[in-house]
Amino acid sequence: MIGHTLSVDEIKNKKKMINMADENTVFIGSKETMNYVQAVMMQFSSGSDEVVIKARGRAISKAVDVAEITRQRFIEEAEITDIITETEKLDNDEGGTTNVSSIEITLSK
Amino acid sequence: MIGHTLSVDEIKNKKKMINMADENTVFIGSKETMNYVQAVMMQFSSGSDEVVIKARGRAISKAVDVAEITRQRFIEEAEITDIITETEKLDNDEGGTTNVSSIEITLSK
Repeated sequence: MIGHTLSVDEIKNKKKMINMADENTVFIGSKETMNYVQAVMMQFSSGSDEVVIKARGRAISKAVDVAEITRQRFIEEAEITDIITETEKLDNDEGGTTNVSSIEITLSK
Repeated sequence: MIGHTLSVDEIKNKKKMINMADENTVFIGSKETMNYVQAVMMQFSSGSDEVVIKARGRAISKAVDVAEITRQRFIEEAEITDIITETEKLDNDEGGTTNVSSIEITLSK
């Protein structure tokens, strides 16, 4: 479709999709912890040597659980090689920004 | 009071107090986030160059918030110099053990 201009929302959605599909990355949301452990294991079994587990806000605790369960129970050769925390500024409904903490845990084998 | 024998509860309380007072350590519990930010800042202002923020389970997200708020908003020269995660085995009420993730974040200035 030549000449089609993306709306701001379409661009946001595309960026979101690209982020979610980031190779070797598992983004932690509201599903059960074991779903994400499975996703991490699938990344490893599809040939990755490194999987990055990302989470924001309350999901940070779950991200640590996912990393710990994966390496303690399933992939014993996996190690946590890096943990980074950041503060992200998200737009809120009132038109301002809200600070939210985020974490990136790198598991390598 | 010579010869006073401590009861089991008194000993437990003393141990708890010693743990809580662990030099340079702030243990994250169920209080408001800003209480712990204040505790970290007090450690720094009392002369520590390094403060360790510890948390278990769901409090892990709050520990990251405490570290991020402290360094972004209050003590700009502070940096996160180490983050360790572990799996701890805690005794549960049914006489077995429960695995719980824990985190230790080291803030240095």
